Amino acid sequence: MTSPSPAALAALKSAIGPGGWTEDPAEIAPWLTEWRNRWHGHTPLMLTPRSTEQVAAAVRVCAAHRVAIVPQGGDTGLVGGQIPYGEVLLSTRWLRAVRDVTPLDDAMTVEAGVTLLEAQQAAAAADRLFPLSLAAEGTATIGGVISTNAGGTAVIRYGVMRDLVLGLEAVMPNGEVFNGLKRLRKDNTGYDLKQLLIGAEGTLGIVTAATLKLFPVMRSRATAMVGLESAHAAVQLLARAKAETGGGVEAFELMKRIGMEFVLRNIPDSREPLEATPAWYVLIEMVSGEPGAAEAGMERLLTHAFETGLITDAAIAQNDAQRASFWKVREEQSAAQKPEGGGWKHDVSVPVSRIADFLDQATAAVERFEPGARVSAFGHVGDGNIHYDVLCPVGGDHPAFLARWPEGSRIVHDIVARYDGSISAEHGLGRLKTDEARRYKSPLEIQTMQAIRAALDPHRIMNPGVLF
Amino acid sequence: MTSPSPAALAALKSAIGPGGWTEDPAEIAPWLTEWRNRWHGHTPLMLTPRSTEQVAAAVRVCAAHRVAIVPQGGDTGLVGGQIPYGEVLLSTRWLRAVRDVTPLDDAMTVEAGVTLLEAQQAAAAADRLFPLSLAAEGTATIGGVISTNAGGTAVIRYGVMRDLVLGLEAVMPNGEVFNGLKRLRKDNTGYDLKQLLIGAEGTLGIVTAATLKLFPVMRSRATAMVGLESAHAAVQLLARAKAETGGGVEAFELMKRIGMEFVLRNIPDSREPLEATPAWYVLIEMVSGEPGAAEAGMERLLTHAFETGLITDAAIAQNDAQRASFWKVREEQSAAQKPEGGGWKHDVSVPVSRIADFLDQATAAVERFEPGARVSAFGHVGDGNIHYDVLCPVGGDHPAFLARWPEGSRIVHDIVARYDGSISAEHGLGRLKTDEARRYKSPLEIQTMQAIRAALDPHRIMNPGVLF
Repeated sequence: MTSPSPAALAALKSAIGPGGWTEDPAEIAPWLTEWRNRWHGHTPLMLTPRSTEQVAAAVRVCAAHRVAIVPQGGDTGLVGGQIPYGEVLLSTRWLRAVRDVTPLDDAMTVEAGVTLLEAQQAAAAADRLFPLSLAAEGTATIGGVISTNAGGTAVIRYGVMRDLVLGLEAVMPNGEVFNGLKRLRKDNTGYDLKQLLIGAEGTLGIVTAATLKLFPVMRSRATAMVGLESAHAAVQLLARAKAETGGGVEAFELMKRIGMEFVLRNIPDSREPLEATPAWYVLIEMVSGEPGAAEAGMERLLTHAFETGLITDAAIAQNDAQRASFWKVREEQSAAQKPEGGGWKHDVSVPVSRIADFLDQATAAVERFEPGARVSAFGHVGDGNIHYDVLCPVGGDHPAFLARWPEGSRIVHDIVARYDGSISAEHGLGRLKTDEARRYKSPLEIQTMQAIRAALDPHRIMNPGVLF
Repeated sequence: MTSPSPAALAALKSAIGPGGWTEDPAEIAPWLTEWRNRWHGHTPLMLTPRSTEQVAAAVRVCAAHRVAIVPQGGDTGLVGGQIPYGEVLLSTRWLRAVRDVTPLDDAMTVEAGVTLLEAQQAAAAADRLFPLSLAAEGTATIGGVISTNAGGTAVIRYGVMRDLVLGLEAVMPNGEVFNGLKRLRKDNTGYDLKQLLIGAEGTLGIVTAATLKLFPVMRSRATAMVGLESAHAAVQLLARAKAETGGGVEAFELMKRIGMEFVLRNIPDSREPLEATPAWYVLIEMVSGEPGAAEAGMERLLTHAFETGLITDAAIAQNDAQRASFWKVREEQSAAQKPEGGGWKHDVSVPVSRIADFLDQATAAVERFEPGARVSAFGHVGDGNIHYDVLCPVGGDHPAFLARWPEGSRIVHDIVARYDGSISAEHGLGRLKTDEARRYKSPLEIQTMQAIRAALDPHRIMNPGVLF
């Protein structure tokens, strides 16, 4: 890719106006890398528009001058999709307005730079729930979670971001504004363009605002940590939990003993959640609109699970502090690996019924390939989504281990494919995984995506380094 | 459009083989019209493939010979999208297999010609729920409800068809098979092609099979009919019902007194559901995974609604027969209009919070335009979706009245647009409404849809007479 010409850069600055751009390397630097410190990009210009019209003006210049552009939200993406390598960087984080909240519609319209946490708070202020929740929610923005179709911990009940968007506003690759900020639950008037933009990682347009679905606040909630002998038991327990609650399972998060050990060793103020030390843990959260019903359902579930030998240990949170401590050991699973030396990361999904088989088979294969490797699998069993991380053997050669990541991942991903799974369940492809995905997508799928992209962005100016 | 050449027709017959096609006008005739008797199409050839490979073979011939093709499911569509006017007709109703049901995944894969009722039954046999439900479910097929993104009565809890599809198999316009029959809850590996095919009315490919989401069977259910003085009260009651149940409202169906009178007068074995004769009725159905909780929630809701004056009358169904009689007066709202002489039909949606205002304003405008016209509005308040039907004044000139339909609809649709609504909430555009939709869609939206369509179907052979 050629660098933007001085004329193009000048036109961009002029289009967006004073205060809407910077060339200062120190100001730009934090936005060229991310928390895993895996990506280190570069850009001649960072744009910081404060209105949809400014975004549109910038994209019109990019279209006219064939300047490539990378949109960025909270910079929490894990696959490098938000990092420019020579493209102009357009940050949406100053699109900050909560435009409206309409409780009777169970809807609110927020701009792209509103963080996920702020969106949750705006909903709560109107006595409603915006359910998407993930570890980076204090920083991740709505524009980013839409563009990557983020998931998180409540997908089993509320779906992924794709399911939570009623309407979108976006600047298309030609600089025109798509005004699709509908508050409608039903609208069958042609192709659903918003669904195409969701998860497109900024390649088909820049999301500037969205109308989001809200939900009732639940009247009862029960949280438990259980111990199990196998992941197979966890899959059985999940089916039972869903039947017991009629859709009231809000989270069902699996952890391995080794991951728990990493947390207890490396994360301050973390506590062993159970008296025993089982091979596997599941954090279960159930909700109900009926006062007391979640607690009753949890009691029924755990009693039955003990009687049938599905679980070996259980603790129900008795207060918010205990609930928070259960969640803490789950949420710190990833951070707790860092002091162990990091490792090969995978964000994969398989059909729920195949999770345990996948874990058995993948771990056996990884251990054959890398004897002594420490597999810390955890994640959203209810969605078939496992963060499958492989850490260096204790005392192993860490750089050599990291160098074998691509080969090791190939082993894991081939097993995922055999189970009809996905090599990127919730993080997207970005710069990291697009090439790997070519191996698993059919030529028809890739050609179809390319045809759509070329039709909407003929000069491929929108985030050209990501996707197909 | 030119007719298919004899060579093309011969190639199609040969591609699909004996028993897979007919030219017999008597065999074809029933599939050239539909129950409202509004469309009367024609075709030189009807194809009845029994496998995905046969569909693909046929489409490959169509692509090679530039033959236009109209896919048809159960022929229950209301906007003419399934009726050929010279195109080859391809019926998917012989793609009949339930390929698999995997309860642990809450998923099942069925072929396009399986009826909605059969899909519900296959789920029930595995102790699961497939929730999409609509009046034509005994005839409508899965391929059709996907291609039209059907809605129905349980959308408030489970979403539209778009929300219920995990994976799709489809024959693309070039005759290649898109194999996207995933059972995954999360898969972020590029554009979501299945979302593009859902609701595309057969213009981007022919759906041959789908993997559908299943849900737990509910353990309690409560059904009530209530009387209200206004649609405004219904919107308030809905908000209360959602809060009271935390998402347990499965249906919330509004009817007007005049629609109830049509049913009582014209439908055998129908019964007045309440002792009083209120201006408006709402049929409410609540469910819960907790035994007894739906009934308790309904009691709480109705008690509160009486106390605050939201409702004037209520009856809770005491048994299945009473429940069925409540549903009967709802489901017959449309059929009950026929003996009254039919009328101008509208399938519109507005934000839930605007429904009552829309009804007030539209009805005032229609009555100014057509004094004495009888407005029978009914539908899915929970989704903002109203079937807004205008019947001829008693003793009026019926043909003259029907001739004013386009002008009358323009009045209704303009008000819908003012409330940021949709002129086709759940029926699609088909041949009936595409031109009308041009008035309300932005040029950008129409051009974007056309660009996508041209990219995937450059010779416009797939259902060329529908959509943009």
